[in-house]
Amino acid sequence: MRAAVMRDRRILVADIPVPDPGPGEVLVKTLACGICGSDLHALKHADRFVEHQRRIGSRFVMDLRADIVMGHEFCAEIVAFGPDTARRLPLGARVCSMPGLIRADGVRTVGYSNETPGGYAQYMRLTESRLLPVPEALETDRAALTEPMAVGLHAVNMARLSPDDAPLVIGCGPVGLAVIAALRLAGARPIVAADFSPRRRALAAALGADTVVDPATTSPWTTWAEAAVWRDTTRAPVLPPWVSGPARRPAVVFECVGVPGVLDQLMGHAPRGTRIVVVGVCMEPDTIHTMLGISKELAFQFVLGYTADEFEQTLAHIAAGAIPTAPLITGHVGLDGVAGAFAELASPERHAKIIVEPWRA
Amino acid sequence: MRAAVMRDRRILVADIPVPDPGPGEVLVKTLACGICGSDLHALKHADRFVEHQRRIGSRFVMDLRADIVMGHEFCAEIVAFGPDTARRLPLGARVCSMPGLIRADGVRTVGYSNETPGGYAQYMRLTESRLLPVPEALETDRAALTEPMAVGLHAVNMARLSPDDAPLVIGCGPVGLAVIAALRLAGARPIVAADFSPRRRALAAALGADTVVDPATTSPWTTWAEAAVWRDTTRAPVLPPWVSGPARRPAVVFECVGVPGVLDQLMGHAPRGTRIVVVGVCMEPDTIHTMLGISKELAFQFVLGYTADEFEQTLAHIAAGAIPTAPLITGHVGLDGVAGAFAELASPERHAKIIVEPWRA
Repeated sequence: MRAAVMRDRRILVADIPVPDPGPGEVLVKTLACGICGSDLHALKHADRFVEHQRRIGSRFVMDLRADIVMGHEFCAEIVAFGPDTARRLPLGARVCSMPGLIRADGVRTVGYSNETPGGYAQYMRLTESRLLPVPEALETDRAALTEPMAVGLHAVNMARLSPDDAPLVIGCGPVGLAVIAALRLAGARPIVAADFSPRRRALAAALGADTVVDPATTSPWTTWAEAAVWRDTTRAPVLPPWVSGPARRPAVVFECVGVPGVLDQLMGHAPRGTRIVVVGVCMEPDTIHTMLGISKELAFQFVLGYTADEFEQTLAHIAAGAIPTAPLITGHVGLDGVAGAFAELASPERHAKIIVEPWRA
Repeated sequence: MRAAVMRDRRILVADIPVPDPGPGEVLVKTLACGICGSDLHALKHADRFVEHQRRIGSRFVMDLRADIVMGHEFCAEIVAFGPDTARRLPLGARVCSMPGLIRADGVRTVGYSNETPGGYAQYMRLTESRLLPVPEALETDRAALTEPMAVGLHAVNMARLSPDDAPLVIGCGPVGLAVIAALRLAGARPIVAADFSPRRRALAAALGADTVVDPATTSPWTTWAEAAVWRDTTRAPVLPPWVSGPARRPAVVFECVGVPGVLDQLMGHAPRGTRIVVVGVCMEPDTIHTMLGISKELAFQFVLGYTADEFEQTLAHIAAGAIPTAPLITGHVGLDGVAGAFAELASPERHAKIIVEPWRA
């Protein structure tokens, strides 16, 4: 089969063997697969990625000398059943799945592994029990957004928002946009979102942000402070006489940038008691002044991925039109276009999500 | 009056004016005042301390060119009332107080300010409404432990422990010891505590740690993993088949060291979902690998100080003998001994808490 593989730290198209579904697994034809920022990271910082896998004691560490087929945001079609399968869904059914193969010796990620090719290949093997049918009316490329949008739902769930909390989203790439969509679903308003890119700010507004900020001209915290004033002043805490200005609701910030320095900057500007949900994946070491955290009693919640329930709920939200996915898909490429798409995604002005269609001519 | 002042980054004894109590304030004679690790920090990293005060927008920033009298862990005696005082407590009453002067324009810390001398002076002024009477049977130097022990109670409260949580205390200086005492009061068992110093490990055991670890010979996480096995196996979660060994209760770590690198080390070794309560004050920048936090979904809660309720509860606990304070007090000095005591406290083998008695000959 054809696949866009990572080989010698580059993406190139190659012919590789069709994977063989094991017990409880199915062979699927990849219909659409989104390109994730983590894939850009994994290509650019491949050694760090592997070093990190080792440090956290991953059971399956990528071997960079062998091919890796990335791609973990996919919609696919069942083409064959492996042994010991229940065949609850028919051949030809369109499916989404969490990108992990459940085997007796552990979960192998689909997309960051030498053995389990991801969605930048024409075929994948998936665990049958994880397959979710895609409703007929839902377009294939929108279904492929389930995975990245589930990340937002999980981050918002992990934030354990109270109705009083006033959110701020820093960074409006795909992760920030997923958080905005999930905040909107949770009814957490107003949503203030910041990004240097005009294109991304427009996307943030399309996904449900109430106010967007360009940090180059205005501090996101200034805008947040205006938005976070208590409307119902009877609920606002009484401030001591030396504090000027009105009381603000508790701040919950979603860090969706993943670049060194952002966390410390947030710690410097955040009001006392702020909760910072760290969603943006930063592969490099980062420096913080813990004294800022201490003197303001800040809290961090690092988050990753989603639960099976959150994944399923997200697919249902997308199918119901509760998440505006149309603005997110800004391009489609075949396997020959993957390397170029990786390069294009480095610029925030051009694209949000590029969908790879491995069967596209 | 005589005072041990910080002048030109050194501690020396000087004669300074007796402070004048303003409206709602009392003049107190300092009977005993503990030396806090933060005071050692403030002396050693004075510029960083001031820079930090500025960065967080403190209303009152120390001027290092003028004298500063530190000391914020005190027991004192009322000697005069300022104007507009209620005089609920009589002259001669022994009192404890949170070390902050409440004024119309804000709270001035007692101990890190050019205007409000702390407990390394013979007299202080305090806000009358904050005074707590010290029960007659309670020794003065033990009452002076209210402030540092309240830090532990606050940290444990902020950890929002569930009965399932298994605690680990990293660092058994005064902060770690206060956390151990508070964990014991909260009934959070078993308590595993780690410190390189044999003396401090003995203190940890005296304060209520169930198991103490020398990180030079054994990883605190190995000991924790043994201690954190579910006794009631019916409550333990079912682990996937590829995970070896028994299930462990959720980990809550109290970082009570405050030295760069410790946080990242904890992030590297902590099991998935660990909550890290950061109590140790680190004045220097610190480097972390946020990717570790993300891949394990760790949470940080930075904590500082205590509430008025927690302060009052701690005094009551000490008076009731619910916190074993006797082992904590390892020395008494007069004002002439403060500079030397600062030097001695740098070695963990000699002392836990040294009490300054400004009237001692």
